Amino acid sequence: MPSSQYSIDVSDVTVDDEFWSPWIDRNRDVTVEYQYEQLEASGTLENFRRAADGTEGGFQGMWFQDTDAYKWIEAASYELAKADDPDLRERVEEVIDLIAAAQKDSGYLDTYFQLVEPGNEWTNLNIMHELYCAGHLIEAAVAHHEATGDRSLLDVAVDFADHVDDVFGDEIDGVPGHEGIELALVRLYRVTDEERYLDLAEYFVDRRGHDDRLQWELEHSEEIGGSSWDDGALIPADGGGSLFLDEDGEYVGTYAQAHAPVREQEAVEGHAVRAMYLYAGVTDLVAERGDEALRAALDRLWANMTEKRLYVTGGIGPEYDHEGFTEDYDLPNETAYAETCAAIGSVFWNQRLFELTTDAKYADLIERTLYNGFLAGVGLDGERFFYVNPLASSGDHHRSGWFTCACCPPNAARLFASLGQYCYSTTGGELYVTQYVGSTLETTVDGTEVELDQSSALPWEGRVEIEVDAAGAVPVNLRIPAWSEDATVTVDGEEVSHGGKEVSHDGTGYVRIERDWSGEDIELRLEMESELVTAHPAVEADAGRVAVRRGPLVYCAEAVDNDRPLHQYSVPDDAAIETDGADARLDGATALEADATVPFLDGWEGSLYRPVEETAEEETRLRLVPYYAWDNREAGAMQVWHRRRP
Amino acid sequence: MPSSQYSIDVSDVTVDDEFWSPWIDRNRDVTVEYQYEQLEASGTLENFRRAADGTEGGFQGMWFQDTDAYKWIEAASYELAKADDPDLRERVEEVIDLIAAAQKDSGYLDTYFQLVEPGNEWTNLNIMHELYCAGHLIEAAVAHHEATGDRSLLDVAVDFADHVDDVFGDEIDGVPGHEGIELALVRLYRVTDEERYLDLAEYFVDRRGHDDRLQWELEHSEEIGGSSWDDGALIPADGGGSLFLDEDGEYVGTYAQAHAPVREQEAVEGHAVRAMYLYAGVTDLVAERGDEALRAALDRLWANMTEKRLYVTGGIGPEYDHEGFTEDYDLPNETAYAETCAAIGSVFWNQRLFELTTDAKYADLIERTLYNGFLAGVGLDGERFFYVNPLASSGDHHRSGWFTCACCPPNAARLFASLGQYCYSTTGGELYVTQYVGSTLETTVDGTEVELDQSSALPWEGRVEIEVDAAGAVPVNLRIPAWSEDATVTVDGEEVSHGGKEVSHDGTGYVRIERDWSGEDIELRLEMESELVTAHPAVEADAGRVAVRRGPLVYCAEAVDNDRPLHQYSVPDDAAIETDGADARLDGATALEADATVPFLDGWEGSLYRPVEETAEEETRLRLVPYYAWDNREAGAMQVWHRRRP
Repeated sequence: MPSSQYSIDVSDVTVDDEFWSPWIDRNRDVTVEYQYEQLEASGTLENFRRAADGTEGGFQGMWFQDTDAYKWIEAASYELAKADDPDLRERVEEVIDLIAAAQKDSGYLDTYFQLVEPGNEWTNLNIMHELYCAGHLIEAAVAHHEATGDRSLLDVAVDFADHVDDVFGDEIDGVPGHEGIELALVRLYRVTDEERYLDLAEYFVDRRGHDDRLQWELEHSEEIGGSSWDDGALIPADGGGSLFLDEDGEYVGTYAQAHAPVREQEAVEGHAVRAMYLYAGVTDLVAERGDEALRAALDRLWANMTEKRLYVTGGIGPEYDHEGFTEDYDLPNETAYAETCAAIGSVFWNQRLFELTTDAKYADLIERTLYNGFLAGVGLDGERFFYVNPLASSGDHHRSGWFTCACCPPNAARLFASLGQYCYSTTGGELYVTQYVGSTLETTVDGTEVELDQSSALPWEGRVEIEVDAAGAVPVNLRIPAWSEDATVTVDGEEVSHGGKEVSHDGTGYVRIERDWSGEDIELRLEMESELVTAHPAVEADAGRVAVRRGPLVYCAEAVDNDRPLHQYSVPDDAAIETDGADARLDGATALEADATVPFLDGWEGSLYRPVEETAEEETRLRLVPYYAWDNREAGAMQVWHRRRP
Repeated sequence: MPSSQYSIDVSDVTVDDEFWSPWIDRNRDVTVEYQYEQLEASGTLENFRRAADGTEGGFQGMWFQDTDAYKWIEAASYELAKADDPDLRERVEEVIDLIAAAQKDSGYLDTYFQLVEPGNEWTNLNIMHELYCAGHLIEAAVAHHEATGDRSLLDVAVDFADHVDDVFGDEIDGVPGHEGIELALVRLYRVTDEERYLDLAEYFVDRRGHDDRLQWELEHSEEIGGSSWDDGALIPADGGGSLFLDEDGEYVGTYAQAHAPVREQEAVEGHAVRAMYLYAGVTDLVAERGDEALRAALDRLWANMTEKRLYVTGGIGPEYDHEGFTEDYDLPNETAYAETCAAIGSVFWNQRLFELTTDAKYADLIERTLYNGFLAGVGLDGERFFYVNPLASSGDHHRSGWFTCACCPPNAARLFASLGQYCYSTTGGELYVTQYVGSTLETTVDGTEVELDQSSALPWEGRVEIEVDAAGAVPVNLRIPAWSEDATVTVDGEEVSHGGKEVSHDGTGYVRIERDWSGEDIELRLEMESELVTAHPAVEADAGRVAVRRGPLVYCAEAVDNDRPLHQYSVPDDAAIETDGADARLDGATALEADATVPFLDGWEGSLYRPVEETAEEETRLRLVPYYAWDNREAGAMQVWHRRRP
C-alpha cells in the first residue's frame, strides 16, 4: 500500500546515521515511552474510560487532551512500521480499544464534550478543537493501519469522518479554528479511496475566510460550548482579546487564517502552526485536484514566508501572543516565539510542496529547518524541550520537561519517528535523494525495484556515499544543497559531475544520474565552508549583524564558551572561521572559532560615556556551537546574530 | 531672608533667555493655570472642603491627592516670588484657607484618612504616603512664606510637623515608604530656626534601613490603612509583588531605599524619584551637620549613579515595574523608564551637592539633565508631558495631556518656576555662574551687593556675555562645561583666560576672576563641536553604537526627518556633522546633519538572507534634532543611539 502522505513510506527507510540515529533512538526510548506514561498520568486514558462508561464529569487535562493519545499512537505506529515491537504494539492496541469504546454510536468522539458538556458539541468551532482532534485521530488511525494492516482505529476514524461529513455543510456551515483535519482527510482518502473525504477536505479549505460562523461564535462566546471551561477563562468576554479581535474589537480572522479565502491570501498570517497545517492540507488538495488558483496562492504564501517572515534557523512566527506571524521583516531575536511545532509544521508543508513540484528549494528549507529551528526544540537528553526558540537570550530561557499544553514533544516524536520519509522521494518516476541522512531505502520507482544504501558525514563534513542497486534504469537525482557552492559527484570513482548546480538538469539544484544500477558507489563531495550571512536591510533586529552558517547548520555563541559578555564581540567581514574539533559536551558537535574583536576596557574607569576613539578594539576569537545544541551546558547568554565589523 | 533651599533665592533672579523663557512662560501661562483648574476638576479641593466639614466618604483621586494642591501652591509661590500677581496670590490664599480648615486640631492633615479611614492614620507608612504628603505641604508652605512673607500655610506646616515630631520616634518607630519629608524638614528648619525639625529629618534618615516596621506592614497589608483602597488592589496580598519582595517573597527594602542604612549604601537602588528625594535630604543634613559618614555615602552613591546607572540624557531609573534602578550598566533604550520626575529629583539632589562642594561636576550634570532628560518630558506646547522618556521608540510613545497620577507635570512646573535658583550660587563667599541662562541677578556675596546681567546664546552657540556690578571685590567663577574643550574669557575685550579648564583655579572646571566690578563686560566663548560618544563596553544596549552630542544637548534621529527606517543608518567614526539651520517646526532648534551610510537595497529582491558583501552601503546623511524636541511633529520612530561604522 502506498504511503498516505508522501511517495515514500516510513517502512521503506531504515535510518542508520551518526548524527540522526542518537536523536531517533532517544526519541523512541525516552520520549515515546514518557509520552505513554503521561497518557495515564495526565488522565488522558481515564477520559476515554469514563466516556465509554457513559458517565459525566471528571474530565482531566486540556479540552483537546484526546490528541495526546492520538499523537502517541501516530508516533508509536511509525516505530512499528520500521520494526515490530510486540510490547509496543499491544500497548497501542489497548489504547485503541479505549478510544473505540468511547466513540458514540453516531461516530462522534470527543471526551471533553462527552464528559463535560454533552449537548454542546459543534457549537464552538473556534476554540474547542473537536475538528482538530478529529484530524489527529485520523492521522493516528492511518499511520496505525499503514504500519500494522490493522483496521481497528481506522474504523473509528472512518466513523468519525463520516459523522463530520454528515454534519458539516448541511447542518453546520463552518470551519475549524485550528486546522489539521484538512490534511488528515486527504490521508484518509488515500487509504480508503473514498472521494467524499477529499470533498470534505476541499469544503473545509474553501469555506475558510467565507463563513461568518467563527465571528458569530465569538459574539456568543458566553453561551456556546467551552464557556464553562476553567471559570470562563478560556473564552474571555472580549473574545480572547487580541487573539481574535483587532484594536477596534472587530473580528479579523487572521489568527485562524480566516481573514480571506485561502485562494486570495497574500501573506502567511496568524497562529503559525495552524497556518502550516492548513497549507499542508491545501497542498495535498492541489496534488489531488490540481486547483491552479490554490496552487498560485501556495506559491505566494511560500514566497511571503521565506522572503519576509522566516528566521535564519527556519523558525517561523515571531510573536508570543498569537504564537504566530506579524508583519514582513518583523523578526526579533530575543523575543522570538518560533515555536518548535511551527517548525515541524513547516517541514510537513514543505515536504508536500516538494512532492508536488520536486523543486529543491523546498528540500533546502526542510534541511535548514530540521537542523536548526526544529532540532533546537529538543534537548540532547531527549527529555527536555523548548516550546519557544529565541535567537538570542540573556540566559533565562531553558528547556522544560513537559508542557501543560504538551504539543511540541509529541509533535517532535512523530517527526523523528518518520524522518526517513523526508530523505527520499519517487515523485514523477525518478528517485530523489533529498536529505543526506545515513539510511537504507527499499522502494520501487515507476515499477522498478530499487535498493539504496546511504552513508553521510553531514552536518560536520560534506561527504556522502550512496550505493544503488536496481532492477532496471532509474534516474537518481542528488540534491545539491543551496549552501554548497561546489559539488563533485563520482560513480565508482569516476567523476560524473563537477560544479554542482551548474550542471544539474533543470537548474533547480540536482545532479541527475540515469543508468542501470548494480551496486555502484556514488560519492558526493559538497563544499562546506563557514560563511557570514546578513539579513535583508528591512530586518531591524539584524541590522549591522551577521550570523554564521556552516553547511546546513546555523551557529550561535554561548556565554559558557566566551569570556566577555556576548554583546561585546564584533565579527569582521573577512573573519577567518575555523573548526574547533568535536565538542564532547555536545555529543561531538563541531564547534567553530571566528576572528572577532572586543572593546579595550582600559581607560573606562570612572566614566560611562566618552568620545569615540579609533583604536578601541582588541582582537580575539568568538567560539560558536550549532544553534540546535544551545542550552545544553551551563545556563548563560546566547546569540545567533553577532555585531558586524565592516 | 535667605533661601531655605539654596544660596540663591527664587526672587533674586529674573530669567530672560531666548531658549528658556518660552518654556518658563508656557509653564506659567499654561501648566500652572491648568494645574489650578485640575485642583477643582479632580476633586482635590473638594477633599479639603469635606475634611473641614468633618464628614466622611466622598474622597476623590489618588490617596496622595493632597499633594496636587501643595505642588501647585509651591509652583505658584515661585511665580509670586518673581513678580506679584494679585489674582494668582488670591487664588493661592483661597486654597490655603481650604487646607488650613481641613487640618485637625492635633495638627494631622491627610484628607484620604480623614474621609475614608479615620482611625487608621500612620498604620501604613509603606504606601499611604502621609509623610510624603507632609513633605510637599512643608515645601509649599516654605515657598509661599518666602514669596509673600505670609505665614498662613507655614503655620499649618509647622503644626503638622510638630505633630509628626510628637508621634514619630516614640509612639511609632518608622520611616516613610516614599521620601520627601527629609529635605522638607530641613527647609522648615532653615525658615523657623527650630532645631527639632533638623533632628526629625536626621531621625528619618538614620532609621531608614534599620527599622523593621515597613516589613511588618507588608506582612499585615490586609489589616492596615489603605487595605480597602480600590478593592485592595493597592496592596496585593503578596505585598505588591516585586515592588517590595524579592523572588523568594522576602522583603528586601530596595524599592524604598530601605535595604541598608543610608550611610552603608553602596549603589542607587529602587524607585528613582524616592532615591533622589532621599539623597537630596541627606545632602541637606550633611550641609547642616557635617556628618562625614553620610557624606562618604553620598559620594559613593553619586559615583555609582553617574558611572554605572545614568542615561546619556541625564535620565535615571531604567525599569518600569519599580520605576527605578536595576543593575550597573543596565540601560535599555526602547524600554527605558527614565521618569521625568526622576530627572527633576536628580537636579534637586545635584544642586544641593553643588552648594555643598562647589564642584562643577554637579552643575555639569544638572545642565545635561535640564536640557535633555528633564526637558524631553514636556512638549513644546507646554500642554503635553512624558512620564517616561525612552531613548528609542518605534513610534508608539507619545506625550499625554495629564496623568491619573499627575506627578510629573506639577513637578516640572515647580522646577521651571524656580529655574533661576540653579543658575548661580554664592557658596563660600564667591559668586558662581553655574548655568548659562540669560538672566539678571541681584544678591549679596559675603555681604557685598552684586548685580549681574547675563545673556546667553546656549544651547545653540557657546557665546555668553555677563555684565557685573558690585559694591566691592567679588570673585566671579565661570563654569567651563565639561563638553567644551576650549574656552576663552575676556573682560571688556581683554583676554583673561584661554584654554578653559586648564587655567581654572582648582581643576574643577572654572575660570575665576577676582576684581572690583563696576559694569565690566565679561565675554565667554565656549567651543561647541558636535561629537560622537560611545558608552562603556558593559552597556549592552549601546554596544556598537554612538550618540551625537553638541554642547549640552543630546541629539536624536526621528523618522519624520529621514527617508530610511532609522535602524538602517550607520554613522562612521569620522562623520562630518554640520548644523542644519534653525528648525521652525521646533521653535527654532538647531538641527544637525551627520555623514551616514545605509545599505544598498539592490539585489535583495526575493531573498531574506545572503552572504556578507563588502560594498553593501551607500553614503547619505542622517538628520538629527535635539532629544528634548522629539515627538513634537509627526509620530514616528526615534533613536538616540545610532549604529557605529568604525
